[in-house]
This record gives sequence, C-alpha cells and structure tokens, in this order.
Amino acid sequence: MSSTFGTLFKITTFGESHCRGVGVIVDGVPPGMALTESDVQTQLDRRRPGQNSLTTPRDEADQVSIQSGTEFEKTLGTPISMFVANKDQRPKDYGEMADIPRPSHADYTYMKKYGIKASSGGGRSSARETIGRVAAGSVAEKFLKEKYGIEIVAWVSSAGDVEAGPIDINTITRKAVDASPVRCPDEETAELMVKEIEAVRDASDSTGGTVSCVCRGVPPGWGEPVFDKLEAMLAHAMLSIPATKGFEIGSGFAGTALKGSEHNDPFIQKGDRLGTLTNHSGGVQGGISNGEPITFKLAFKPPATIGQAQKTAGFDGSNVTLEAKGRHDPCVVPRAVPIVEAMAALVLADAALQQEARATTAV
Amino acid sequence: MSSTFGTLFKITTFGESHCRGVGVIVDGVPPGMALTESDVQTQLDRRRPGQNSLTTPRDEADQVSIQSGTEFEKTLGTPISMFVANKDQRPKDYGEMADIPRPSHADYTYMKKYGIKASSGGGRSSARETIGRVAAGSVAEKFLKEKYGIEIVAWVSSAGDVEAGPIDINTITRKAVDASPVRCPDEETAELMVKEIEAVRDASDSTGGTVSCVCRGVPPGWGEPVFDKLEAMLAHAMLSIPATKGFEIGSGFAGTALKGSEHNDPFIQKGDRLGTLTNHSGGVQGGISNGEPITFKLAFKPPATIGQAQKTAGFDGSNVTLEAKGRHDPCVVPRAVPIVEAMAALVLADAALQQEARATTAV
Amino acid sequence: MSSTFGTLFKITTFGESHCRGVGVIVDGVPPGMALTESDVQTQLDRRRPGQNSLTTPRDEADQVSIQSGTEFEKTLGTPISMFVANKDQRPKDYGEMADIPRPSHADYTYMKKYGIKASSGGGRSSARETIGRVAAGSVAEKFLKEKYGIEIVAWVSSAGDVEAGPIDINTITRKAVDASPVRCPDEETAELMVKEIEAVRDASDSTGGTVSCVCRGVPPGWGEPVFDKLEAMLAHAMLSIPATKGFEIGSGFAGTALKGSEHNDPFIQKGDRLGTLTNHSGGVQGGISNGEPITFKLAFKPPATIGQAQKTAGFDGSNVTLEAKGRHDPCVVPRAVPIVEAMAALVLADAALQQEARATTAV
Amino acid sequence: MSSTFGTLFKITTFGESHCRGVGVIVDGVPPGMALTESDVQTQLDRRRPGQNSLTTPRDEADQVSIQSGTEFEKTLGTPISMFVANKDQRPKDYGEMADIPRPSHADYTYMKKYGIKASSGGGRSSARETIGRVAAGSVAEKFLKEKYGIEIVAWVSSAGDVEAGPIDINTITRKAVDASPVRCPDEETAELMVKEIEAVRDASDSTGGTVSCVCRGVPPGWGEPVFDKLEAMLAHAMLSIPATKGFEIGSGFAGTALKGSEHNDPFIQKGDRLGTLTNHSGGVQGGISNGEPITFKLAFKPPATIGQAQKTAGFDGSNVTLEAKGRHDPCVVPRAVPIVEAMAALVLADAALQQEARATTAV
Repeated sequence: MSSTFGTLFKITTFGESHCRGVGVIVDGVPPGMALTESDVQTQLDRRRPGQNSLTTPRDEADQVSIQSGTEFEKTLGTPISMFVANKDQRPKDYGEMADIPRPSHADYTYMKKYGIKASSGGGRSSARETIGRVAAGSVAEKFLKEKYGIEIVAWVSSAGDVEAGPIDINTITRKAVDASPVRCPDEETAELMVKEIEAVRDASDSTGGTVSCVCRGVPPGWGEPVFDKLEAMLAHAMLSIPATKGFEIGSGFAGTALKGSEHNDPFIQKGDRLGTLTNHSGGVQGGISNGEPITFKLAFKPPATIGQAQKTAGFDGSNVTLEAKGRHDPCVVPRAVPIVEAMAALVLADAALQQEARATTAV
Repeated sequence: MSSTFGTLFKITTFGESHCRGVGVIVDGVPPGMALTESDVQTQLDRRRPGQNSLTTPRDEADQVSIQSGTEFEKTLGTPISMFVANKDQRPKDYGEMADIPRPSHADYTYMKKYGIKASSGGGRSSARETIGRVAAGSVAEKFLKEKYGIEIVAWVSSAGDVEAGPIDINTITRKAVDASPVRCPDEETAELMVKEIEAVRDASDSTGGTVSCVCRGVPPGWGEPVFDKLEAMLAHAMLSIPATKGFEIGSGFAGTALKGSEHNDPFIQKGDRLGTLTNHSGGVQGGISNGEPITFKLAFKPPATIGQAQKTAGFDGSNVTLEAKGRHDPCVVPRAVPIVEAMAALVLADAALQQEARATTAV
Repeated sequence: MSSTFGTLFKITTFGESHCRGVGVIVDGVPPGMALTESDVQTQLDRRRPGQNSLTTPRDEADQVSIQSGTEFEKTLGTPISMFVANKDQRPKDYGEMADIPRPSHADYTYMKKYGIKASSGGGRSSARETIGRVAAGSVAEKFLKEKYGIEIVAWVSSAGDVEAGPIDINTITRKAVDASPVRCPDEETAELMVKEIEAVRDASDSTGGTVSCVCRGVPPGWGEPVFDKLEAMLAHAMLSIPATKGFEIGSGFAGTALKGSEHNDPFIQKGDRLGTLTNHSGGVQGGISNGEPITFKLAFKPPATIGQAQKTAGFDGSNVTLEAKGRHDPCVVPRAVPIVEAMAALVLADAALQQEARATTAV
Repeated sequence: MSSTFGTLFKITTFGESHCRGVGVIVDGVPPGMALTESDVQTQLDRRRPGQNSLTTPRDEADQVSIQSGTEFEKTLGTPISMFVANKDQRPKDYGEMADIPRPSHADYTYMKKYGIKASSGGGRSSARETIGRVAAGSVAEKFLKEKYGIEIVAWVSSAGDVEAGPIDINTITRKAVDASPVRCPDEETAELMVKEIEAVRDASDSTGGTVSCVCRGVPPGWGEPVFDKLEAMLAHAMLSIPATKGFEIGSGFAGTALKGSEHNDPFIQKGDRLGTLTNHSGGVQGGISNGEPITFKLAFKPPATIGQAQKTAGFDGSNVTLEAKGRHDPCVVPRAVPIVEAMAALVLADAALQQEARATTAV
C-alpha cells in the first residue's frame, strides 16, 4: 500500500467503500491561505455519482469536513485532514460472489497481494478512493490560482468511438465543460456522446473514453529532472487513477510520425517573455515547464462492472457465469474530469514548492 | 534535481555530457548475487552510439567500472557504484550558440530553472544521462531473472509512420530484436524502417517512433495501490526517459473505444494458476500484476537536434536562424530499447522487494 | 510540516489542540492481523491526562475510532485511519496572551516559521499531537508481538533529581511499571518521585526527568546502515517527541569514559544462538540489532508552562510578566512512557518490514 | 541499506574499505555557487588518519575528485558526484579471522543481516564510509556560509574521563580547535587528553569521548515539525555516525534535574530581533530554530578494535582468544570533529531549503 503522494506538498489518503469513511491528510499547504469547506465541496460535487442519468444513480452526498489545519478559516501550515463519511458503512457478506473474481476488476489481484480483500464494493480499488484526491486537489488548486494565477481545465475528449472536435485550450472554461452532462464542451459531439453512453447503458454494457486537460499560467522552471520530470510526475499521477490505460503529453503518440523539422517548436518573443510558436511539446521541455500551456490526454478503459452475463472462472478455477447486479457507471469519463484536475493540481503544487526552494536559495 | 528513483531498490544517477563521467549508485540490491562488469556491459553496448549507420557515429566505448558493493564477484547488499568516464571531458565555449536556446531542447527551460546551464552537449538533459539507468537496470534485471525467472524484451514497434506488424509477445527474444539494426523484429517492416530513417538522415531531419515492451513471468501481487500502482510506476519511469511523449499499457488508447463486454479479460484456469483468456489489461489489474505478461508501449518524439536550418529566437528575443553542426541520431528508438528495458527492470525490482516485505510478514 | 514517519510501516498524523480532532493514518500494516479499537485504547488510556494527581486534571476521554483499513476485525493491508475527537473544538481568542510568546514554548518559533499560529493550546506543538503516535504505535506493537514475540517496556528512570535504582531489563513488565502513579517500578524511589513532583506542583513549578526503555526479543539483523541505523532511527523517533532533549543507547554518555577492554561485549554461545556476555552496545552493533535486548534512555526537560510569574518579552520586544493560568502537568515523564513505547514500536516495525524484504529476496 | 539522507539537499554515499573507492552524490545543491575540489579537501584532510601520533598511522591521502555537477568552477544545480580512491583496493582473505566476529564490531550483525560480509576492514561499517559525508558536508557548509553566514564549529569536549573546561560558544573557532592534536580548545585539558590517549594507546587499549558542536547564525524558523523537528534530524544524523552512543541538545540530560523556573529561557530584545536570555533550549524550541546558537553534544564509545587479547566466541560458538593486529585509532573523537560538522551542515542545508519553499509561497 502506498497511500502517500508528493514530496513537499504531500497527500495521504485512506478509506474503502464500506468502512466508516474516506479522506485525506494534506501536508505542506502554505500557511495563511483562506480555506473553508466550500472551497473543497465544489469539486467533490462534480465528482460524486448520481449527478445525471449518465452516472450511477447511487446518491452520495459526500459532504466534506475539515478536521484540522485551519483556524478562523485560514491555513496554519499544519496538516489539513478532511473526511467524508460513507453512507453505507456495513460490509456485506457477498455469498457466492466472494468466490468469483470479477473479470478485469481488482478482486483477484488484491487477493493474491494481500491474502484478504474487502468483501464488497471494491474496497480500496473502489472509485470512492478518489474522494480524498479531489478534496486535496481543491486545496492545491486554490494555492496555485491565488499565488500564480494558474487555471486547470479538463474535459471529455472522447467517449467510446465518438471524438470531440478541436477545443481552444486558451479559452476553455469549466463552465463550458459542464454545459453538457457528458462534460464535452463541443456541443454537437456532446450529444453524440450522450447517445453513445445511453446505448451502452441500455445494453447493460459500458464504454471507455479519454479526458484531455490544460494547465494555463504555469511559470517556466517547474519540474525536477531527471526522474521527476514534470511529464513523469503527471504520468505517475494520472496512471494512478483507477481505470486509466494511457497518458500522452503534447503531440503524444501522433507526434511520433512527424519529422523533427515539423515537430520542433520555434521560439518567438511573446510580450516580455520567450514563448514558442507551436506547442507540440505540451508546455514541457526536458522535463521542465516552458511557460506555454501544459496539455495532456488520458485513456480510460470501459468500466469492468457490466450487467451482461460474463463467462469466467471462480477462484477455484471452476467455470461460472457472472451477472452483476445493481446500476453502475456505463462510462467513467464525465466523473473523471475533476479527478484529473485534482491530480494535475497536486503535481503542480509540489513542483512549485520544490522550485521555490531552489530559486530562493541560489547564491 | 531529483536524481533518485525507487523505494527499496533505489538508484541515484549523476553526470553531464562533458564532465568527468556519468554513473549511478544502486542501493538495495539483495546480497549474495553473482555480479561482474560483464553483466552490465552487454546492455551498455546496446545503448551506446556508433553501433551502425542509423545512430550517431560518435564513438563512445562506455566501459563500466564497478567501484563498490561487490567482493569476489558477489554482491554484499551494500550500495553498488558504477562509473563510465566521458571521452570528452572539457566543456566548450559555444560562442554565439550560448545565446540561442535550441528549439524543443532543454536549453531554455534549464536556464529558467537553474539560472545557469552546462555550456554544451545538453548537460544533464543529454542522452548520456541514461547510461546510469542502463547500468542499474542490468543489475535489477539479473536479480529478477535469477530469483523469479522474469524476462524483459523491448523492441521498436514504429519508426516515423512505419508500423511493425504483430509480434508474438510470448516468444519474442532480444536476439530476434537485434537481428535488425533498427531493432524491429518484424523483418519486412524493419527494412522499411531502415529506409525511412536513412531518408530523414539524408534530409538532415529526424523522426520519432514507438517502443513496445513485454515483461514475462512477473508473479501476481506486485505493485502498490493506490499511488504506486504498477502502471503508475511504469508510466513515471518511462516518461522520465528523454524525448518520451506518451505511455500506454495493455489496450491503451485503442481500448477506450471498446465496450466493457469486449474489453473485459475473462478468467480461465491455466495449469495450476488462474489466468485470463485475453490480456487487454496488459498484465495489471487494480494496479497489481495478475501473472499475465505485462505489455506497454512508449512514444518518442523526433530528436530536436537537426541539421536543417531553423528559424527561431535567441534568449534576447531576436530572430535568428539556427543550423546544428555535427552528426546526430536521426531517430532514437533503436537505442532506446535497452533504456526501456532498464527502467522496466528497476520498477519491477522495487515492486518485488516491497511485496516480499508484505508477504513474509502477514500474520 | 513533516507529519509522515517511516518507509514501509508509515504513519501520518494530524490535528491541533482545538480543531475537530487528532488522528493518524497507518499505512503498510501487514494484512490479516486481528485488530479492534480495544487494541489501541489501552495505550491511549495510559497516555491521557487526568489519570491521577500527578497529571493535569483535564479530563479527556480520548476514545479512538478506527475509520478504515479493517473488516470483520481483521486488517486488510490497506491504510488504517484512526480518529480521536477533541473535547474543546473552539479556538479561543487569547487576548493579550497572543502578544506574548511563552518562554521555552513553540509560540515564537511557530510564528517565525509559519507567519501564523494556532491562537491557543499550542496548536500542533501541543501534547495532543502524540495521540496519533500512540494509536499507531499500538498497531505496530501488536504486529511485533504476534509475529516475533517482541516486548517493549518503558519506565520512568528519574524525575527531577530522583534517580531510580537498577531495574532488571529482562523481567520488567508494564504491570510493574504501572504499580506506581509515577511509573517508576522501583517502589522506594517511586515514592520519592511522587513527593518531588507534588512539591514542584505545589510551588507552581515543574521538573524534568528521564524515561528508559527496553525492547526484548528483537531478532538480529534489523536496522539499515548507513543512515538509517537502528539507533539513528530510534534517536530520530525519540527526539521528535515534544520536550525531549537527549537520547542514549546502551552505555550512552557514561560509556565514553570506559576503556575498549572494559566496554567491548564478548560473544558467548547462548542456547542455539550467539549472544554477548555484557550489553554495553544496547542491543545494536554497526547500526543493526544483534539479538540482545535493545536499551535506551531519553531526557525530558521540565514543562515550560508553569504557574509562577516569569519575566520575559512580548513579540514586540516590550518587557512583560507572564503568569500561566489553569493546571498543567508538573512533570511529563509518567505520561511519556506509552509515547516512548509507541515510537519504539514504529521504528522496529519499519525495520522489520525492510529486513524481511531483503532476507526473502537474497539469491 | 539506506545510503541516502535528506529530502531536498540529499546525499547518497557508497564504498567499502577495500573496494575501488568511496564517494557521494550530492543532489539538490543550489545552482550558481562557486565550488572546486579545494573547498572539499580541507575537511577531508582534517578527517583522514595519520595526522599525528594520536591517530592510526595509516597514510591515506584521500584526494577528492569532483566528477560532475560543476562547470567552470560553478555548481549547475545538478548532482555533484565526488570520489576518493582507496589505496588498498584488494580484499584480503582473512583466514581464521573470518570465523571470529570481533566483539562490539559489526561483523556479527552484518553477517546476520546480509548473509555475507566484506572479508576485511569492516566493509561498509568502516570509518572510510564517512569520507562521503565529509565531502558532502563541505558543500552544504559552503552554501550555508555564503547564503546565511552560518558558522559550524565542533570540538572534543571529553576524552576518556578528562572533561574540557567551559568553552565560549560565541567565539570558538576551528583554528582554536586545531591548535591541539586532540582538537580540544581548552589548552590545559588538551594536554591531559593527549596523555590519556597516549596511555591507552600504549596499553593496546582504547577510550571513548564526547564531541560538542555549535551552529551560529541559523535564522529562526528552520526545522519541520512534527517528525522532522530540527533536534530529531540532528539526532538521526549524529547517531548514524559510527561508534556514537548518545546525543543531547541544549541542557540535555543535565537539564532534566532542573525546575521549569530555572530551565525556561526568557525572551529579551536583542538588537532588532527577539532572543533569549539563557539558552537551555540549545537554539531549538518546538523543533524549530529560534535564532540562538544551536548547541549539541555527542557520545562516542571506545573503539572496538584493540590490540589486547580478548576472550570471545567464534561464529560457531567455540571459545577463542582474539588479538587484533596492526595499529588502530585509540580514540576516535579528534577525527570525528569534521564528521560531526559535516552532518550538522547537511541537516541545516536541508532544513533551509524546506523553509525557503514555505516562506516564499505563503499567500
């Protein structure tokens, strides 16, 4: 179990789907910053299920409580603990389900790793685990916005095989993203995505998708070569989100087919700073931010839990047919948007503190 | 600067392109393992330039010296320090070049981050930095092979827009990979890749490509949820390699367009263990290895240094035309193969030690 | 703020004296261990104030709640979060006290470090911060006892200038320690200590003392040279406890006056293992446990908060006279006993996991 | 093996007594600082054996070579690798000595931990391991002096049972310390110490001693509560030095017998800052520096290797008599002085960077 992430801006999360609750300790938050629960609740509300017909109808209020680290609504520089109670705190005895690892789920691997697993709901591999990330990310994001003017916006760039048209990364806002329940800011595509998701939902099936993200206003100089390059930390953070299968920054996989003469980003003067004419680099060169928008994209597989009957094997190797009960997200990408933003904020806040330490002490 | 990677099997690298040398300290190597320099030299030879007409003709012998941590050719359990001298140890005064940050290179960002940069050769962002990784990875790989029978094989799956045909991940060997100078085991495609690379080389240009990798024989249970999931650590490791722009595991980006009913990997009995019928998961479920082959793919951008004239701006914002001198790799993927294998081995060795600690102490 | 301690058995604490509560996340607990709140409550009860006339009469029930990481009273291998609510959750406006840093307290340094401080009760420097340590230590201790048969016992070896007579480290028990309210197992001295503490209490003063500790049954081989030697980790852990000023292991400071011929511990056969005739080493040689009892001693200064009037200066440099109100511990050592045991257990549990990783993988 | 120390200013050391050499990588050194080998050699010369008749006559030149991280005699912000070759690089076959663990040495515990040990010279537990610390400490010290004006001076405060008289911590200099071969700046005591050490040397015996240290000019605000309090990090660093058995800061063990009314350090205005009238705190309150001199003391046991015959047991439990050959340090404290200074500098440099990160980003 590695439940801690970050070097100076450091979070530690806890909680399974059916214990008392889930939460996070955020250590290293700069002191003197205004912070109340409402600063955190907004993104938690964007994350929670039951927001619309595209997500699981389970109603989870997910009210966050700040337990430490602030006084008179200001951060003290001490660890901020945040807690969200679980609605259903009783583990269930899943009967025969306990004998069958769900295909492409974590049941089998948790059992092989720990020799024991939470009896229901996915335990620590449950999506509820991301609540702590989103709460912590909100704190990081507030710091980044107030101190540096940084804006982070993620959106759904594909659902199933429906791909969004081009988005203007310089102007895209969360408001525009939230205009559609599927969180795709390209209106026309959004409608197609909704239909796609409704179709797989009605077929008791699921589908994958991609989330894109831009971080605007990151100053040049952030990111720690050679192992903690900014893209390496972003990749680490993003691939730690459940159900992710891929990450690309800037030109990504498509850029591998280009020539250097096409792919290189020439420098140009932009106001009082040096910028680049194109941004195939995605805002990062040599592992360090260059002042251009940081752009990356993340692949999410189709949710493993589906209503359709599946032929598989039990822990004992016997052939079985599995049919999941209840309702489940047919596609996770709309709800993944605030999680991606949170993890990006956590990476950037940590990079910020590390670079401030260096910049101040240079002799 | 974050030059340390790993928790229990931990490496720390050093060295710029024109200092005395480059190297690595490997801490946490299990004691009692046979180890000599020849165990390390093999992969260093696969990494070094000048191997054939597709790579830069600079001749770097890159002879490794083990400076500590072994006695009578056995590891002591103490840190293993390895050193490779630089041929050209004098920093050059690059004259006007010092005033022009090379497009899509790290010159600009290093200067913004540190306020100073190595005067030539890319300093710490140079490809020579990867020598330490490859040396350390060889030690990790030897441990993984001797203790668990793990095999790691990477190969070039595309160069420019030439994509390799299907490769059998269960049987592919390094010998088959090395049969072609471009390290693509698909003979026919390999020839096309060679032509593609020769063409960009002759045009004083460069091109990108992808490297795929399989890790066979990894036992189920490795990888540390929730932040150090196996795919998260692999993504971190891979995106820390210079010139990388993307990472995908298992079905990756293509899998996002699939339905859950297509994408799920049903369990089946395989001999005396549970396996999966398909492997869209890429050997990892819930961040933990499941015993199937681990498969991933990595995107490399076209090298930024090209002979063609490029319009860009100097540090002072003035318009300039830049023409790189000397000879450079027109495509990095053939030489990246052993680097990818090394980083995979380092991630797995660290995951192994962490899981052994848990498995032994379960009460 | 560094609120995380440990490498594999890792704890993160949070909480000030007047926020919602204090607590801890314990990550890395081996799975499958029986654990309920009563396993933790015992040591918390030994730590809490109001136990007798020697401690502050503030009544803090300090009931612990396990919020995650167990199911059906067994550990899952996932992070265990534990929470203790604060009785008084409202920060007070301390009026003029806010302008005067208490002598030898953390008021001044917290203000210089963070530019802000909790308005009352010491914030994060409060003794309540140690609740999370004691809770986590109880989990570590249970693991050490069940898996290795390790016993950890601490006791008060001096209060003020009253020093306990010799204690038999091979047989001393917590029961014997708790026989006296001052937690000194030497009956006669204990009475003198009680009188000493009552005298300073009645004089509105305070006094210091020492706590000694023995860890029995630690197998040889624990501790990680060269920087995380067992004594180095113990010293780190112990000096992180509030009010500590010194640490010594084995012969400690007194041993510096001995000759090598007197101080060396000769090896002798003990049953089926090699042991030492004397134990000046305190159970550790070269930073690694040798199988003999680990013995160390810790110095606690007199509590800084006293009822007597003190001449000092305000934050603005003005001369002031300060008189603390309320009742405070005249001597912390009796209540420090379970805290010392907890920190020892945390260091040993982490060392255990690290050594298990090594021992299993040696090839 | 934990050969890495520090969070932002981080060192990793390597090397046994009879391998190719010993050294260190220093990561996190601020860029743009002037640095050459002569900045490092001075302290290495103070550490090396053979300086006078009180130390082992083995002649080790210990010339340091900077292998990376600087260019044109300035730091680049990249890892600085430093190397010192071993004179005698051949491991010896120690014959029957291999079967006898030396009393109070690390032979037995290394064998229990690793199942293998360096055949001669103590391997990683050898005093040569401290060369990397001293080299790295010199870099840290230069940074602390140039950026903050910090001065660190250590001296021998006792050898055997000879204790130095009072030293003025505000004025003591390294020059005054080095006036005597025993590095005790109290002239009269120094002579007694020399006689004491010569006496044990002539008796083929050894003796212990203490080293005291003061760090002047540390600004208030350094140190990271709650686990990385400044005194906790100092204790960790100091107890990781070979042969240490105790650490105390400020009033230390003696302060435990004082009353709070005697021990508290009243605040007073000192120029334009708040200071304290006394300094029982040793410059640290609540784990954070308060601007007063930081003072601590360290206990060293008598060296375990002595010429006298010792009755002990072999690895197989058989009774044996052991007589060490060659010449050895009869007392380590004179040579420990620069090692203590180095470790203090490393702790402070790391604390500095962490506090700079916080102070700059407070919003």
